[in-house]
Amino acid sequence: MISIEVALGQRSYPIHIGSALLANSDFLAASIRAAQILLVSNEVVAPLYLEPVTTALARRRVESVIVADGERHKTLETFAAIIDRLIDARFHRDCCVVALGGGVVGDVAGFAAACYQRGVDLVQIPTTLLAQVDSSVGGKTAVNHPHAKNMIGAFHQPVCVIADTDTLSTLPPRELAAGLAEVIKYGLIEDAGLFAWLEKNIGALLALDPDALSHAIRRSCEIKAGIVAEDEREQGRRALLNFGHTFAHALESLGGYRRWLHGEAVAIGMQMAANASLALGRLGAEDHRRIGELLRQAGLPTRAEEIDVDAVLELMRIDKKAGRAGLRLVLLDGLGKAEVAPAPDRAVLADAIAAQVCA
Amino acid sequence: MISIEVALGQRSYPIHIGSALLANSDFLAASIRAAQILLVSNEVVAPLYLEPVTTALARRRVESVIVADGERHKTLETFAAIIDRLIDARFHRDCCVVALGGGVVGDVAGFAAACYQRGVDLVQIPTTLLAQVDSSVGGKTAVNHPHAKNMIGAFHQPVCVIADTDTLSTLPPRELAAGLAEVIKYGLIEDAGLFAWLEKNIGALLALDPDALSHAIRRSCEIKAGIVAEDEREQGRRALLNFGHTFAHALESLGGYRRWLHGEAVAIGMQMAANASLALGRLGAEDHRRIGELLRQAGLPTRAEEIDVDAVLELMRIDKKAGRAGLRLVLLDGLGKAEVAPAPDRAVLADAIAAQVCA
Repeated sequence: MISIEVALGQRSYPIHIGSALLANSDFLAASIRAAQILLVSNEVVAPLYLEPVTTALARRRVESVIVADGERHKTLETFAAIIDRLIDARFHRDCCVVALGGGVVGDVAGFAAACYQRGVDLVQIPTTLLAQVDSSVGGKTAVNHPHAKNMIGAFHQPVCVIADTDTLSTLPPRELAAGLAEVIKYGLIEDAGLFAWLEKNIGALLALDPDALSHAIRRSCEIKAGIVAEDEREQGRRALLNFGHTFAHALESLGGYRRWLHGEAVAIGMQMAANASLALGRLGAEDHRRIGELLRQAGLPTRAEEIDVDAVLELMRIDKKAGRAGLRLVLLDGLGKAEVAPAPDRAVLADAIAAQVCA
Repeated sequence: MISIEVALGQRSYPIHIGSALLANSDFLAASIRAAQILLVSNEVVAPLYLEPVTTALARRRVESVIVADGERHKTLETFAAIIDRLIDARFHRDCCVVALGGGVVGDVAGFAAACYQRGVDLVQIPTTLLAQVDSSVGGKTAVNHPHAKNMIGAFHQPVCVIADTDTLSTLPPRELAAGLAEVIKYGLIEDAGLFAWLEKNIGALLALDPDALSHAIRRSCEIKAGIVAEDEREQGRRALLNFGHTFAHALESLGGYRRWLHGEAVAIGMQMAANASLALGRLGAEDHRRIGELLRQAGLPTRAEEIDVDAVLELMRIDKKAGRAGLRLVLLDGLGKAEVAPAPDRAVLADAIAAQVCA
């Protein structure tokens, strides 16, 4: 097991990464210290991992709530159901909410922990690659509004993150690829070395090679922890983590949170952002080609077929990165070189979305 | 106009107290600086004050949402309606929510501002005495759960508070008295001099004497600002502000948020806490008598007739001040001398609730 610290002063916390962590009762019991614990999981993950975690916490009062799987259930209704469970259990302010599952469980359980009695402890146990490399780290919690993604939420840092790489062995290939999209993102925005390593090791990652997965998760968490420690509330540099996400959120909303997994939408969004960067003369053609190539090798989509480009543009207008000065986008000046910049003209954006500039 | 600073480092903000503030367009325009503004008010306050505020902000994009009046509408549904309005208006992260009304409007609009896009600016314009002396200051926002009060919320400090004392002239007498309950609370927990001043000036306050009201609001805000600056997240001393509130929240929940105004429930709760303090030998009989006397002179109830004492005790168990060590209560050792202490035995509490120890 390795541990990475997210340095946030009094609210600093560790990310523990390793194998067999959920099978280690002593480790779990030491990591989750509250006397009252609500485990939040989903219908897919709970049959696999709820029992060992519950057993490890045997001496405490443990309740659980199982939410439906999928981004379209990341709603205020699911949030309210978790709050109901906390109220019914008469849990106090010193209780702990444990999110056991992927990004959806982490986001909605995290938002419930942020709001119950104005904030209780949260432990993240991410069981998908996407959650392990991205959504469980950094304190962003939220639910979706029917018209826009992640519009209702809070910054609420966990007290610790436990990423057991063994859980990835039960992950469907499509979800593994979706997680790789965020790993590729870290390479693109911050670390050309990671990008080159991914080009060489994408096969090993898709084959669930433990060493390759460990390295990818560790490096991703290191990059994210560094950025979050520097800019917790996204006043500046943290916005780089949204590379591809403005496009992705619009696509997810347009698809009713059913058509694409979040990571798949991010892959398409990163390709669109790369298309725009190429069209603007920021990104070279060879780098642009390598980005599309790696995404496709990871088994990720890079185009949104049969979409209404105007509808995507309209949905992007409400994005959280938009402000008084208009929409802002993360654009690439090269591999590992990203910048938040005013969005280009509508025509450039429309072409980038329609993938007219693709090689 | 006088201004009191709530000292919270980068998140410090002023409370402006004075007359004719809402009639002063230049002042309002300078205090609310966002380009996109959502005014949240209720069906009683909006006809009186929405128009002058809207006019003062004429050069910006101003939308409004009117919520139903009353504590029983401080719900997740009302919160969602405010979020819907922000989404429909396509408001950005640099927008501002303005809460124009009493404590219910401030709490639910404040919670919406805390959660929309994970937090946008909030300006509080409290129009009731209770909101001016208490709920608009300090950053606590929340909605009620059907089974317990203020269970879903966030700490979210406003960027400024504008308390126009002229708005109190339209306040129903019952609401004025409810606000005085919180003023009396400040005297009881922190300032015996304020308590003695209130004994002398209660008639002037009930007659809406401007100087008396100004003094009461100013002193209340000074005390609250001092406590909040010292303990923003209620890790310690801020809990004193909950004097009487553990009883009150149980009563409000039991009464379906209809039977008592919040301040009325607080008055009864303070009397119950004084009863318990007397029974425990902490509070002298003469001080106990003066407390009941002042509450009654303010036109406030001091007993809850025909209530189920066991139901009150059960509801108190889930209170936010309860923790691993059991329920804790704010008790009095004298006028202006309060302490957070473990709750007394069930029999003492039951007697305090049933007012068996009342003189």
